[in-house]
Amino acid sequence: MEPSLASLEQGIPFADRHIGPGPDELRRILDVIGVASLDELSERAVPESLRRSAQPLELPPAATEAQALAELRELAGRNRPMAQMIGLGYHDTVTPPVIRRNVLENPAWYTAYTPYQPEISQGRLEALLNFQTMVADLTGLPVANASMLDEATAAAEAMTLVRRAGKSASNRFVVDQDTLPQTLAVLRTRAEPLGIELVVEDLSQGLTGLGLGGDFFGILLAYPGASGAVRELDLTIADAKKHGAAVIVAADPLALTLLRPPGELGADVGSTQRFGVPLGFGGPHAAYLAVRKGLERQLPGRLVGVSKDADGAPAYRLALQTREQHIRREKATSNICTAQVLLAVLASMYAVYHGPDGLRAIALRAHRMATVLAAGLCEGGVEVVHGEFFDTVVAAVPGRAGTVVEAARDLGVNLRRIDDDHVGVACDETTTRERLACVWKAFGVSVSDVDGLDADTADALPAPLRRTSEFLTHPVFHAHRSETALLRYLRQLADKDVALDRSMIPLGSCTMKLNATAEMEPVTWPEFAGLHPFAPAEDAAGLLEVVADLSAWLARITGYDTVSLQPNAGSQGEFAGLLAIRAYHRSRGEGERDVCLIPASAHGTNAASAVMAGMRVVVVRCDDEGNIDLGHLRSTVDEHRADLAAIMITYPSTHGVYEDTVGEVCALVHDAGGQVYVDGANLNALIGVAQYGRFGADVSHLNLHKTFCIPHGGGGPGVGPIGVRAHLAPFLPNHPLQPAAGPATGVGPVSAAPWGSASILPISWAYVRMMGAEGLRRATLVAVANANYVARRLGEHFPVLYAGHGGLVAHECVLDLRPVTKATGVTVDDVAKRLADYGLHAPTMSFPVAGTLMVEPTESEDLAELDRFCDAMIAIRAEIDRVAAGEWRLEESPLRQAPHTAKCVTGEWDRPYSRETAVFPAGATAAKIWPPVRRIDGAAGDRNLVCSCPPPEAFA
Amino acid sequence: MEPSLASLEQGIPFADRHIGPGPDELRRILDVIGVASLDELSERAVPESLRRSAQPLELPPAATEAQALAELRELAGRNRPMAQMIGLGYHDTVTPPVIRRNVLENPAWYTAYTPYQPEISQGRLEALLNFQTMVADLTGLPVANASMLDEATAAAEAMTLVRRAGKSASNRFVVDQDTLPQTLAVLRTRAEPLGIELVVEDLSQGLTGLGLGGDFFGILLAYPGASGAVRELDLTIADAKKHGAAVIVAADPLALTLLRPPGELGADVGSTQRFGVPLGFGGPHAAYLAVRKGLERQLPGRLVGVSKDADGAPAYRLALQTREQHIRREKATSNICTAQVLLAVLASMYAVYHGPDGLRAIALRAHRMATVLAAGLCEGGVEVVHGEFFDTVVAAVPGRAGTVVEAARDLGVNLRRIDDDHVGVACDETTTRERLACVWKAFGVSVSDVDGLDADTADALPAPLRRTSEFLTHPVFHAHRSETALLRYLRQLADKDVALDRSMIPLGSCTMKLNATAEMEPVTWPEFAGLHPFAPAEDAAGLLEVVADLSAWLARITGYDTVSLQPNAGSQGEFAGLLAIRAYHRSRGEGERDVCLIPASAHGTNAASAVMAGMRVVVVRCDDEGNIDLGHLRSTVDEHRADLAAIMITYPSTHGVYEDTVGEVCALVHDAGGQVYVDGANLNALIGVAQYGRFGADVSHLNLHKTFCIPHGGGGPGVGPIGVRAHLAPFLPNHPLQPAAGPATGVGPVSAAPWGSASILPISWAYVRMMGAEGLRRATLVAVANANYVARRLGEHFPVLYAGHGGLVAHECVLDLRPVTKATGVTVDDVAKRLADYGLHAPTMSFPVAGTLMVEPTESEDLAELDRFCDAMIAIRAEIDRVAAGEWRLEESPLRQAPHTAKCVTGEWDRPYSRETAVFPAGATAAKIWPPVRRIDGAAGDRNLVCSCPPPEAFA
Repeated sequence: MEPSLASLEQGIPFADRHIGPGPDELRRILDVIGVASLDELSERAVPESLRRSAQPLELPPAATEAQALAELRELAGRNRPMAQMIGLGYHDTVTPPVIRRNVLENPAWYTAYTPYQPEISQGRLEALLNFQTMVADLTGLPVANASMLDEATAAAEAMTLVRRAGKSASNRFVVDQDTLPQTLAVLRTRAEPLGIELVVEDLSQGLTGLGLGGDFFGILLAYPGASGAVRELDLTIADAKKHGAAVIVAADPLALTLLRPPGELGADVGSTQRFGVPLGFGGPHAAYLAVRKGLERQLPGRLVGVSKDADGAPAYRLALQTREQHIRREKATSNICTAQVLLAVLASMYAVYHGPDGLRAIALRAHRMATVLAAGLCEGGVEVVHGEFFDTVVAAVPGRAGTVVEAARDLGVNLRRIDDDHVGVACDETTTRERLACVWKAFGVSVSDVDGLDADTADALPAPLRRTSEFLTHPVFHAHRSETALLRYLRQLADKDVALDRSMIPLGSCTMKLNATAEMEPVTWPEFAGLHPFAPAEDAAGLLEVVADLSAWLARITGYDTVSLQPNAGSQGEFAGLLAIRAYHRSRGEGERDVCLIPASAHGTNAASAVMAGMRVVVVRCDDEGNIDLGHLRSTVDEHRADLAAIMITYPSTHGVYEDTVGEVCALVHDAGGQVYVDGANLNALIGVAQYGRFGADVSHLNLHKTFCIPHGGGGPGVGPIGVRAHLAPFLPNHPLQPAAGPATGVGPVSAAPWGSASILPISWAYVRMMGAEGLRRATLVAVANANYVARRLGEHFPVLYAGHGGLVAHECVLDLRPVTKATGVTVDDVAKRLADYGLHAPTMSFPVAGTLMVEPTESEDLAELDRFCDAMIAIRAEIDRVAAGEWRLEESPLRQAPHTAKCVTGEWDRPYSRETAVFPAGATAAKIWPPVRRIDGAAGDRNLVCSCPPPEAFA
Repeated sequence: MEPSLASLEQGIPFADRHIGPGPDELRRILDVIGVASLDELSERAVPESLRRSAQPLELPPAATEAQALAELRELAGRNRPMAQMIGLGYHDTVTPPVIRRNVLENPAWYTAYTPYQPEISQGRLEALLNFQTMVADLTGLPVANASMLDEATAAAEAMTLVRRAGKSASNRFVVDQDTLPQTLAVLRTRAEPLGIELVVEDLSQGLTGLGLGGDFFGILLAYPGASGAVRELDLTIADAKKHGAAVIVAADPLALTLLRPPGELGADVGSTQRFGVPLGFGGPHAAYLAVRKGLERQLPGRLVGVSKDADGAPAYRLALQTREQHIRREKATSNICTAQVLLAVLASMYAVYHGPDGLRAIALRAHRMATVLAAGLCEGGVEVVHGEFFDTVVAAVPGRAGTVVEAARDLGVNLRRIDDDHVGVACDETTTRERLACVWKAFGVSVSDVDGLDADTADALPAPLRRTSEFLTHPVFHAHRSETALLRYLRQLADKDVALDRSMIPLGSCTMKLNATAEMEPVTWPEFAGLHPFAPAEDAAGLLEVVADLSAWLARITGYDTVSLQPNAGSQGEFAGLLAIRAYHRSRGEGERDVCLIPASAHGTNAASAVMAGMRVVVVRCDDEGNIDLGHLRSTVDEHRADLAAIMITYPSTHGVYEDTVGEVCALVHDAGGQVYVDGANLNALIGVAQYGRFGADVSHLNLHKTFCIPHGGGGPGVGPIGVRAHLAPFLPNHPLQPAAGPATGVGPVSAAPWGSASILPISWAYVRMMGAEGLRRATLVAVANANYVARRLGEHFPVLYAGHGGLVAHECVLDLRPVTKATGVTVDDVAKRLADYGLHAPTMSFPVAGTLMVEPTESEDLAELDRFCDAMIAIRAEIDRVAAGEWRLEESPLRQAPHTAKCVTGEWDRPYSRETAVFPAGATAAKIWPPVRRIDGAAGDRNLVCSCPPPEAFA
């Protein structure tokens, strides 16, 4: 029987490429688990009530890679990339092709995870340290993180940082009126639940005379302002300091190559988008947050620090993790987990490639273009509002703003229509004299001799603000100036890291699945990369269709009614979802409901988000199986019947189990007037099998970077959309500059850009488009099968902590190392580092239970790789047994000495085990992955915090 | 003084990224050489007469990367990619995105060189062995090479192979009339100079009755034919064998998944383009040549074989090099040097990813689409000419062919207009039922129930020709079926190799310079990749403008009048240039001129090309300085005054020297009625400084893959255009299917496609566009400066063999190791392999002089890398001294034991030097490059030839 033409035309389903095990392998996996089919696995593992509530997924039939790419090309063709001179924090920039291809398009960079295993993450840690050094140098502040989600949320984080760190009793925060409008809007969204009173004033003339007295804990200044104006800040800052208030400066880092850095002023925020990161309709980009000495322990987000390895060699790792939300929960400094690592790497490499002179030349170009533009306008009789600016000029054209902007659009240029009478024009590194001519033409001005005008026109920077101090003096910003040199530097860094292109990354709760090339390719197409977020929506017609499709598909997949794609990280999704619940209660006159129940097993971010949303956290106990203690839930709900706002649970649970009682939990909370928030972190175990919106939940955030194939990028970008049932839809985020981005009744923006990290949404679009309903369901069940296979193979060597229904885990399993640790002293750390010697990335350590390893293989790993991991774990267990038997003293064992570098095995050797055992425990192979450093002493680094590039001599 | 707007607008010149040393570094380099400036270097190094004859380069001013990419996007937009159903050996195909991104767009693959250093080339050697195994399996022949330039030249090589290997006294070669027209045309071009009589006949009914008797040495059969017809070949083959003639089958490898392989028949040629390699307007693609046992030593091109390393582990390397042109010169089996490695890797990975079942399904799709297409045409009353075919249908439409083809074009489909009455339609893996409907519509046919037609229509393959044998049974074609698995396999292979992304590759005469990303990006744009070479020229309007620009620019750069871009390798350029000379002499009634003078120092390819062009080679002696012996030249010219056709020289000479006497050499030859061919291998030392066409040469080939930044791709693709003075222009190559590709009076095609490897010409276009005249000249002089710097630093450790004018070398220098070898036994091989331990690629070994190393750093290497190389060479010299001093026995020294693997330094150790010395001779570094195997015994592999994948157990 020949296959039909119709089936031949299908080609090879993408699902067969995405899913690791082929049919034969799957049969062996199911055999080991003891089920006959994926369907049986589903029936045995997933509670029947959940399956019953699910509806079939109505999605377009699966497209091949070629079809999906052709459709995306067609959509891309509907976008209209223009010369973008709107400004407002988003600028045209040139991504150097060598960086685009070898970072942004290179799986060695984009498939990496957050560098929690620093010994096999030295490459991107070095790149991030370069980022921090760059930000610290440009801002003149000693400590910068790497990085923030966007400039607006960075400003919000800075606001809460100075409030937390300061001693002021005031709840008032003063923002300069020349702040970017989206920053202002996000500050409002974030201030209100925390009871911060936001006051917007013209701060250009200082603070006295504003009638504020001393009643404010901080101020935020824009440098330059949204209007482009560059103002002297000394007076205002002095006023603020006099009252003991903190000063935040939102600064454009490119401007800081020419302007005096705000180093002495206080916390400092801004975006590095224009450092070679494509506009992408608003994101993702890496924002920064830099602080003065003394504030580093308050700094939210990721911070890379320098420490030493076991041989005393300098080594990088994430510093000060103890302040993070996954440890401090509701006492965390912030709810942020994800950073924008990939984008921070891009921006840092842009600085590495250009060096200080190159950056200064780029800044000077933007500045001179703006200066000559302004001169030409004046010459043509158009009034220019500010005399001192960096790259942005505001022209007064009474009643004509609309006409001018339209005329410019006809010439291919987007300008900013400020109001009926004013137009803003921002220059950047792509501005040419030819484009200036277009702009003049749009204003009805003609300049005959541009170069003459150039020669006759002085700079428009205030003389006292000219930067005189050096920056980027570290050799790394001087050594890689040729493309060949940079290419090799990028390769050397990438080679130090373990990403999905070399090993499975079985991180429980992180879902490190395939990031397929067909999903990734459109990201760097200029038709997606070149869109300004505040350009007319028609410019982004194709991308907005991606947004619409994806929203609809995610709603069907989750069983919700409406989806918002704005939150640009899971944490932002949590915050937005809780804000929606809060607004819903208020809309019904039940504003007193402010208690958020959170199970003891929850991820710490949940609690931190609840606090940010103005809620009080009440913890619900779990039983020994890791399930919610229903009895305790009942009594807690009873206790809070009047003020219960919500419960936040994760499903499947953070223990990787399909809890049977979820329906009952939802009902209990609903009966008491509360709402149910289900954290979508583990959605990968549910698609096509059950739907949050149909088994009782009201709102969830999804992690597109977990379940929907957006790569982790070494620790970001992430995208955290939320789905809600209809009654919460009026309370989704919206955006002041883009009415289409959310309901008019919404809670305000939670991200700077209307659709968050819009430019990477085609990744998830392509995934759903290519998998189809059947493929998505199969992926879910293979993910569950793979986890159960690992659980079965490893269960006799390490106890598997939790199992649900039918003795089966969901899509991940928890291996309990506590008995081993108790008996031998061998820790999860020892096992994790030893896995690096085997060429494997460690599972999640000590979450959700200290002393355990949580393994999530995902559907993308094939049997060979699952077995490589299981074989390594079993071999490590045998090594532990030798410690237990007294054959090796723990301190001298390959476990504690792990990981081993090439250097250490070529030097003197007096260990009780051989060099081969050290570095080739699974046999010699040419594909050996060499950790570049030995075990890193994180605590020592935290004690002696160094967060910018050490001098080269440190490595001698 | 502020920089002007005009200068700021320039941005950073691309030349500053392309050229390695910055201003400070260059100053230090010039200091060491002892010159004050690049201009002084030019004056001192380059003979005055040459410089005087040069004219300023008239090129467009240098564009930035962003500008050049924007211009190329505009040009790409003028192309019109259609559904390509023309067939004729070129088919639409789907490049799997994971292969496109991780091979074709990955510098680790495309910047590698030919694997002459096999110990650091195991990755691509494995990929090429996969290619050979794939071809051998599909064709049923035991030995396949990797690879040929295109199907047409592969057929020509097969023709000369069987002539060389056979015993027949006949000069006649019989070609089936259903052979691809471009193959036929190239066979004609190649047969004539060798005195082979080409006879074209209908061979479908056997050979008897054709009146040939037994007077032919070989036949070529097309399988399927150009018309698509699949015919039984048994009778014809039996007839041929009866007369002792060899049989060549030009077979489509995709068809061979369904058809009986021609394994028993003889030599076998074909193209693997449709294995995922983009059409690219005709190339580059990898063709194959497979032979029966006994012919392997006659096989031209590169052949990968399996051998053992010093530890007895299996290892790959190029086999049977002794038959190649650089060793056998005029007695070579072929003049081919370049293969199509990068494309062969693509095709092999396509087979690895799809496996036999996937390939069979793709073939079946093409076949069933064609079958149903034919059935629909019949149903609609259109006559289908052949009843048995694979993927191509010929329809008889008397008088209507033009109308049908035009109607199809209106629907976005290109068909083949065979003549006024016949249209050919080729199906492929992208054909859909929807597209069939378009084709039917163009024919005026409507099919209501395609699927019903499908169910009712039998296959159109002759039953006796159905393939029953297995293929691709090796595990490598079964183990990498998920994208994750293939991604990791590609990474593991790439990590075994040293390419430009990790080390300089200072190969004399190879010019391994930067292949900039901005040059490479357009290659994979669909607007360039999707063009069929025989589609109407208007479809390729943008690409043809690239062709026109580049031709004009190359003419100006070389001082010639006309350039042909058709030759798709340097060897093909040599052949085309000599054919032009031959045709010129004939056109003047001097057909007796057939002597080609070649200096003793010439590259062997020159001699092999001369023989192919029907010339007799007469060698001219060189003096001790490596220069042409003018006395001997004079007497030789005198002797051959009547029959002198040409001299072939290289300038600067193959010794890397600017010979003073070149003007005199040219004059001598011209005076005797000869023409001057200058091999452009060393053009990188001349651009902007002197011009071949102005100092006396008549014709040259250029190597765009040396001087003009096309990457070497691990050993191909190459592009070898020729430039000629006006009197030779009528004799450039042309093409029977594309009149615009050359003069009507031309010598016929030398490549299958009209403009050869057209899809990679944007690389060289971008290079010239971004460098501008000044940048190109600076690149030349920095290349010369870098070479002289190396010569100065290393001269006291190893004698520098040749120097020209002012004691300066040109762009490369020859280090003489013969004294060292004589004194200590340490060979160039030992030094080359030891360099691998230092993480460096070796220079060219034993060319142009046995026992020497020729170093060409190129302009793209910066001072740090030059010093890393020089320091390593000096350290190696110190190691040699320890051997000389008797401290180490040579056999036990790190030199002879090099390279060292990680495995060997972690095992037992009884060497007289330490493990650190073995693997970290320049100090431990995390960027250490580990050779995956130890030194390979090439001779053993040649004695016991294995040219397909060994079983996995071999690696146990």
